[in-house]
This record gives sequence, structure tokens and C-alpha cells, in this order.
Amino acid sequence: MKLIIAKSAGFCFGVKRAMEIATEAAQKHPKDLHTLGPLIHNPQAVEFLEGLGMKVRERIEDIPRGTVIFRSHGVSLGDLVKARKKKLHIIDATCPIVKRAQVFAKHLHRHGYTLLIVGDAQHPEVEAIRSYIPERVDVMENVAAVQRLGPWDKLGIIAQTTQSFSLFKEVVAFCVERVKELRAFNTICRATTVRQMEAVEIAKKVDCMIVIGGYNSGNTQRLAAICRDIQPHTYHIETSQELRPKRLAGREKIGLTAGASTPSWIIKEIEQKVQSLKAKGLKDL
Amino acid sequence: MKLIIAKSAGFCFGVKRAMEIATEAAQKHPKDLHTLGPLIHNPQAVEFLEGLGMKVRERIEDIPRGTVIFRSHGVSLGDLVKARKKKLHIIDATCPIVKRAQVFAKHLHRHGYTLLIVGDAQHPEVEAIRSYIPERVDVMENVAAVQRLGPWDKLGIIAQTTQSFSLFKEVVAFCVERVKELRAFNTICRATTVRQMEAVEIAKKVDCMIVIGGYNSGNTQRLAAICRDIQPHTYHIETSQELRPKRLAGREKIGLTAGASTPSWIIKEIEQKVQSLKAKGLKDL
Repeated sequence: MKLIIAKSAGFCFGVKRAMEIATEAAQKHPKDLHTLGPLIHNPQAVEFLEGLGMKVRERIEDIPRGTVIFRSHGVSLGDLVKARKKKLHIIDATCPIVKRAQVFAKHLHRHGYTLLIVGDAQHPEVEAIRSYIPERVDVMENVAAVQRLGPWDKLGIIAQTTQSFSLFKEVVAFCVERVKELRAFNTICRATTVRQMEAVEIAKKVDCMIVIGGYNSGNTQRLAAICRDIQPHTYHIETSQELRPKRLAGREKIGLTAGASTPSWIIKEIEQKVQSLKAKGLKDL
Repeated sequence: MKLIIAKSAGFCFGVKRAMEIATEAAQKHPKDLHTLGPLIHNPQAVEFLEGLGMKVRERIEDIPRGTVIFRSHGVSLGDLVKARKKKLHIIDATCPIVKRAQVFAKHLHRHGYTLLIVGDAQHPEVEAIRSYIPERVDVMENVAAVQRLGPWDKLGIIAQTTQSFSLFKEVVAFCVERVKELRAFNTICRATTVRQMEAVEIAKKVDCMIVIGGYNSGNTQRLAAICRDIQPHTYHIETSQELRPKRLAGREKIGLTAGASTPSWIIKEIEQKVQSLKAKGLKDL
């Protein structure tokens, strides 16, 4: 049995940065330390941070005093205003690539473009981006949804940073038919594109694919969906406990990748478990 | 036999306007009246203008004095400067929609976008647009050509006003993969899109398609190509003399359309010829 591990698996730059900021904050401001929502979409990493004394709070209203860390996905304008009003000590761990998407969204709105976001309307990153635009912003998760919209005079398009590039491209191609002017910023994070491309390449070569990451992580969900389209034996798991040996029985090539918010220690644990199963002989599982 | 004639066949707004400007000029400035290149891409219409005393000259150098009419496709910056230097009396018959494409091209260049034109590099309209941009401008007639270009930071895309919309869309979709920012102005003339769409609908219904217009007319050539993709029995002709009765033999439904620079009198003549053949009985041809 051969195990192929994606080079791009695991923490991206923005997640790594947010984890460093949070760990440092735990040392400097150990008292009344909170994150607004989970810092990153990985329950095990969040548990680690809670071990350092950090409390996850869903609303600013639930943080009476002390420090609030804004998570990697960004903060909405409403929450930002509330946190300032409450005079909370603010530490901003928003991913710079997410911030860039916010800047482009504001820029397009300011210059008279109707804004369209390719992304998941429920995702905190998209909710935050939308909150800075004083007008209605349509969010599209598939091309079918776009077909109900338009035509537009001036249309601006950006994407959630972890969206699938092929969807972004499809939406742009569809919309250009219905506009006088279209302006699109490719706000998809390069790390996401590289991770998706590598996953596709590995999925083509293997007879079983393991995708590791939080079930609440949008980019991990999309990564699993992309792999499943190519290799139906794709399993999305969060931890090594969830790795069922029977699923690997008889497989000759196993691929492994992980979302942007998956800690390296979890990837390592799963890798070791696969290797130990291999030593036992996968055929006999 | 049924004859279906496209409602959109014949002179578009810009060509009609250019013909009116030229006819008026022939009355007001009958002496030393010239057009720089053919006013529109239709030999029969140009012949009619020559009958009014208008001379077609390919270069400003060949116009010693008098009046010069700039054709519907626009004039290059170089020729404009030369005409002014020579103190020729200038009458500008550039189509306002072509002028709009020139304005967007300049706007994109001025704002730091690398300019890409979807069009035919040899067409006078494209040559004129390009001449206003002091840097190299790539012109693409198919998607294969775009694949050799990029990536770009800021890419601006416009189209020759009579281009096929599906090509414009394909180029935009391809380029969005290779840019940080893409800005596209849909400069394709609405009349062109409507004419192409109507031709497609008619071509689907008939067993023979006649496309009328100058062999040197880009939009007529594209119209014929679009129809031929659907109905192989598509014939591009310039005049009624070229209508070969044998080609219509046995056809039950005949479609008819014409390019943007095809005079109505030619369309009428061909329609009458088809009707007279019909009266004779197409089956016996």
C-alpha cells in the first residue's frame, strides 16, 4: 500500500497567523480573554485554545469586559461597532486575504457597482463582507441562483476566499452576458486553489481518499466534495478516532489531504494510524 | 414553400447614420469629396455613393484637398492627425457605438489595465481602436490565441462591436483564471447580438438559409458562419444575380437575413427573386 500526502494539507497562512496571535494573547492577556465565534473552523484547535483559557462567545453581548479576538473570517461592522462601544480590548486576527476581499467589496460599492459575492451566505466570512455594504448584496452558491438575477449596468463580482475557482469562473461567464460592464476581483486565496488542484491530482491516482478537517469548515467540505466527484471512496474525518480501518481494507493507494484549518498534529496522528494499519497488512482488515 | 425573413436584416443604426451623413455631404460639398476607405462594407452601397461623386481613397496621402468623410468603423489616430495637418474638411461618420468602444479602450488604458480586444486584428474598426493606445494591444479572434497570453494583474477586455457574443464570453471566462482583476466592457452592439440571435432561431427552422451582404463585411461573414454551423445549406451572397435557383430546388422553408451594411433595396430584390421562383414552383427548378 502506498500513502500519498498532499504537500498543501493543513494550516494556511491566515489560520497559522490567527493561531499565533491567539496563543500570544493568551500569554499577554490571560484574564477575560474571548474569541467572537470560533477562531478557526476546527473543534480540536479551538479546544486547544480553550485549554489556554480562551472563551468562545457567539455574540458581543455575551462578553462583559476584557479582550475580544476577532476570528480569521473577519468581523461584521455591527459587531465591530458594539465592541468599540463597550470599550473591549480588541485583537484583530482577521486573515489579511479576507480583509483584502472586504476592501475590494467596499471599493466596488463606492464606485457604483452592484456587488455579487460567490460564496456561502451563511458563512461568517461572507456575513462580515456583506455587513460593510449599506445596500442589498446577493450571494451565490451556484450558477442556478445567478440566473434569477440581472441584468446590470455595472456589476462587481468577488468571491469568498475559500470558494471553488471553477464556480467563480462559471458565475463570471454567466454574468458577462447580462451586463454593460463587469468588474471581477479574483479574491480566492491562492492557497485554496493550490490545495484544491493538488487534491484533484491525488484523487485521480488513488483508490481511497481521506480529507481531514472540521465538519464546520467550509473549505474542508468543498475539498471533500471535489475529491468525491473524482474518487467516490472519499472520507471526510475530523480525528484519528474516526478513521475506520475497514474502509482502507484492500486499498492499494490511499490519498490524504486536509483543510486550511486542520492542525498538523491531527494530520500526523492520522498518518501514523494509516502507517500502522499498513504494517498490519491492509488486506487482512 | 415558406420564406422567413429576419426582422433585424439590413442597415443598423450606425450604417444608416453614416449613409445619411454621406448623402447630405454629397449635396453640401459636391467638390473634392472623399471617404477614407469604403464608408461601409458593402460594394453596392459604395457604388451608389460613388454615383453621387464621392471618391474612395485608402490613404490620407491620396487626398490632396477638399472634404474627407471618416467611415462608420472609425479613423486611426495617425490618419486623424494627418487629415488635420492637411487642413482637410473633416466629416466624422464614425458609428457612435464604435466611438464608445474607443472611449472604453482609452479609459481602461488610462486606469492601468492591460487591454485585450476580442476581434479581428485586420478590421479597420479594431485598427482604429488600437491606434489610440500608446502600448501594445493584443487582439484575439479565438480562445486558442488567448492561451498564449497572461497572467495579468489588471486586465481590461473589450470587443469589436460586431463580434460574436459567445466568443467574448469564452475569452472572459478563460482570462478570469489568470488575473487578479478583470474589467470587461460589453462593447458588442446590441443590434449585432439581436441579428445573430434571430439568425440562429431562423436557421434552426429552415432547410436553406440565405445571408446577404458584402464579402468584405465582417459581421455578414460571422452571420453566415453562425448560420452554417446550424444549417449547412447556408449561402452568403452579395446581390440577386448570385442567387442560384438550383440551390433552392426542393426546399420547403427558406430563411433570409442580411448584415448590418446591406442596403434594403438589395434585400428586397432578392426577396422578390425568391418569390418569383416560388411562383414558378421550386420543385421544378
